[in-house]
Amino acid sequence: MELGYFSMRIYLDYAASTPVAPEVLKAMTPYWSEKFGNPSSAHSFGREAEIVVDEARETLAKFFEVDFDEVYFTSGATEANNWVAASATNNKQLTTNNSKPHVITTEIEHESLLEPIKELERQGKIEATYLKPSRDGFISASQVEAALNNNTVLVSVIYVNNEIGTVQPIKEIGKVIEKFKSLNVQRLKEKALNLKPSTLYPVFHTDAVQAVQLFEPRLSYIKVDAMTVSGHKLYAPKGVGVLIARKDVPLLPLLRGGGQEFEQRSGTLNVPGIVGLGKAIELLSVKGVRQREHKRLAPLKEQLTNGILQIIPGAKLTTSKEPQAGHIVNVIIPRVQSQIMLIALDQAGIAVSAGAACSAKSVQPSPVLLSLGYSADEALRSLRFSLGRLTTKKEIEATLEILARLAKRFKIA
Amino acid sequence: MELGYFSMRIYLDYAASTPVAPEVLKAMTPYWSEKFGNPSSAHSFGREAEIVVDEARETLAKFFEVDFDEVYFTSGATEANNWVAASATNNKQLTTNNSKPHVITTEIEHESLLEPIKELERQGKIEATYLKPSRDGFISASQVEAALNNNTVLVSVIYVNNEIGTVQPIKEIGKVIEKFKSLNVQRLKEKALNLKPSTLYPVFHTDAVQAVQLFEPRLSYIKVDAMTVSGHKLYAPKGVGVLIARKDVPLLPLLRGGGQEFEQRSGTLNVPGIVGLGKAIELLSVKGVRQREHKRLAPLKEQLTNGILQIIPGAKLTTSKEPQAGHIVNVIIPRVQSQIMLIALDQAGIAVSAGAACSAKSVQPSPVLLSLGYSADEALRSLRFSLGRLTTKKEIEATLEILARLAKRFKIA
Repeated sequence: MELGYFSMRIYLDYAASTPVAPEVLKAMTPYWSEKFGNPSSAHSFGREAEIVVDEARETLAKFFEVDFDEVYFTSGATEANNWVAASATNNKQLTTNNSKPHVITTEIEHESLLEPIKELERQGKIEATYLKPSRDGFISASQVEAALNNNTVLVSVIYVNNEIGTVQPIKEIGKVIEKFKSLNVQRLKEKALNLKPSTLYPVFHTDAVQAVQLFEPRLSYIKVDAMTVSGHKLYAPKGVGVLIARKDVPLLPLLRGGGQEFEQRSGTLNVPGIVGLGKAIELLSVKGVRQREHKRLAPLKEQLTNGILQIIPGAKLTTSKEPQAGHIVNVIIPRVQSQIMLIALDQAGIAVSAGAACSAKSVQPSPVLLSLGYSADEALRSLRFSLGRLTTKKEIEATLEILARLAKRFKIA
Repeated sequence: MELGYFSMRIYLDYAASTPVAPEVLKAMTPYWSEKFGNPSSAHSFGREAEIVVDEARETLAKFFEVDFDEVYFTSGATEANNWVAASATNNKQLTTNNSKPHVITTEIEHESLLEPIKELERQGKIEATYLKPSRDGFISASQVEAALNNNTVLVSVIYVNNEIGTVQPIKEIGKVIEKFKSLNVQRLKEKALNLKPSTLYPVFHTDAVQAVQLFEPRLSYIKVDAMTVSGHKLYAPKGVGVLIARKDVPLLPLLRGGGQEFEQRSGTLNVPGIVGLGKAIELLSVKGVRQREHKRLAPLKEQLTNGILQIIPGAKLTTSKEPQAGHIVNVIIPRVQSQIMLIALDQAGIAVSAGAACSAKSVQPSPVLLSLGYSADEALRSLRFSLGRLTTKKEIEATLEILARLAKRFKIA
């Protein structure tokens, strides 16, 4: 407790979850107990709920530059990613009847994308290629190009990795896929099948959970067909997310029933959550706000990174090559296991993580770090600091001060 | 607008959605922007989120009389029902390798149970028997008994039907299944397979979305293995529900990823929603509260029912046989289509529904009413009034007064 003299706790785990923004909380308020109708109901209570869901959908459609009916609200990013994976089996364009749908993804995806794909592979329903990142945590467009074949129905590449913060070349990968589709049009024309390129495989999906609060969200600009977004990673509440998907994307409903969300995702809509997500996206829609926040975070991240490397000479960044998201710093420290350091920091009031939050309880080394070529031993000594909207210079300074004391205690200073 | 002289709107669609109770809203408050940690995170922000999720889980476990790890939080009842249906394909006890898993359900289930089962049947993954209700809307235990076979892996019967309010003989069906399991133990013993009856098929599941706020929730008492519950039908928010399932139930994860919910349901937990559901169940746990509410509603329902039948002599109840839930009145009115009457009532400030909320936008006749033997024409003239915690005698009187005026206008008085 010698370090517990800071009266405020410092939260540096924004990549795990963010607080709900005051504007978001305020926007949700009327929809709990006053305007509580089921948006599927035809009466005025239902209509007032439907109208605000529509408004949120419109806000999202504008932000992502897609049509109104290309926005599907889900219970979160895990559902959206599972939905995309399951839809890979919904295909009608394969070259031969016996061929299996082929999925290209990467070794550094979030588990909610990787696990359902691995499960479909185990069940023999798909074939999958898992692209290996470079030592610095990047997937290249040429890797994707080399992996494409005529059975490829889905390419899914994470926009910003949640553990190491690398920004993948989504636009370049999109171009490669676009080119492949044009060639496919030629191939199908020869078979007297006239299909628009947009309706052709593969679907290009990106998990943009850690990306849209700082980077380009427009689907046509980054050339993706589908995108996963989570509410609670961008100051909206937990329990709501969205799958943005072009109309041409052959979705296979994961949840069936009342036929909500254009018959693609059943279940009573989470009205307050959706209103909250709409407001959070509205806040991100203000011109320049994402760029300004990235600019504001960059020097804080630099200060934190340099501070850590100075305090702990044996520490190394898991990746240093650009482009990197301005909010994630991942370091491997010498000798001390992440779990030990994490607890010591926590006792001093500082919240950071070791690997992704979802697997924080497990003591397995991060598959992402293993994929980058780190040893299990190294991966078990990684710490992820993630910055957010409330992070201040003072907090970074306090964090470094505490880290210096702990480094001395653990004899890694 | 001649009828718009009531300043207050009257909500009689509690079966579609309920307002969040003030106690529930208050309980959720700290978890938006203050205690906003991800319960999967190991630091103090994560732990304080995990603790309240655990507390809610404990509250539910006590209420349903199950173990702590038999409570799986979901995004709602649709997900829970889809999950149960999908799990029917996860079976390892079928009599022969070629036999398909067999599911017994009813024609009067909610769409979120029926649609995924029909889809699995279309895909050839299961065989399904859909039990037909009596003209009064009841399924009998002997119907279930007659449909059971050695391949039956799942029996799913709705506890209280959401459209007509009939309470099914869940306990009697449970006994029939229990007996069948005991015989199965004998059969398997002869094959030198020693299995506990509890681990045997079929799993008995009930969709209790319209039931637990008024009726017996304890799994062992009503003899079910699994139960679906929705937050927003019992004064907790939309976007949260629960699947209660005995450890022996062979669940097949629908959402994979971070391994939350005992590796069975991935996705960041909706902490405020779960806290809200916990509080809503706590309110229902008070001794006698459900019975008292049922007693309070019974005369209101009777007043409403008698009033309707008196005002509109040609009206008939879709079902009148007991046992019925005290909160649902479903009538078929003469000549006037539900949609017309619904709009007229809505303009006068009264919210009721025609059929289930989820399909309120469609003009299809209710499959439940068709199943009871009503004609499409009759089914399209049905109105569902559903009462709730805020319903008063005054509201019922005002509703009848308005209904009397409308009946005159439509010449059905």
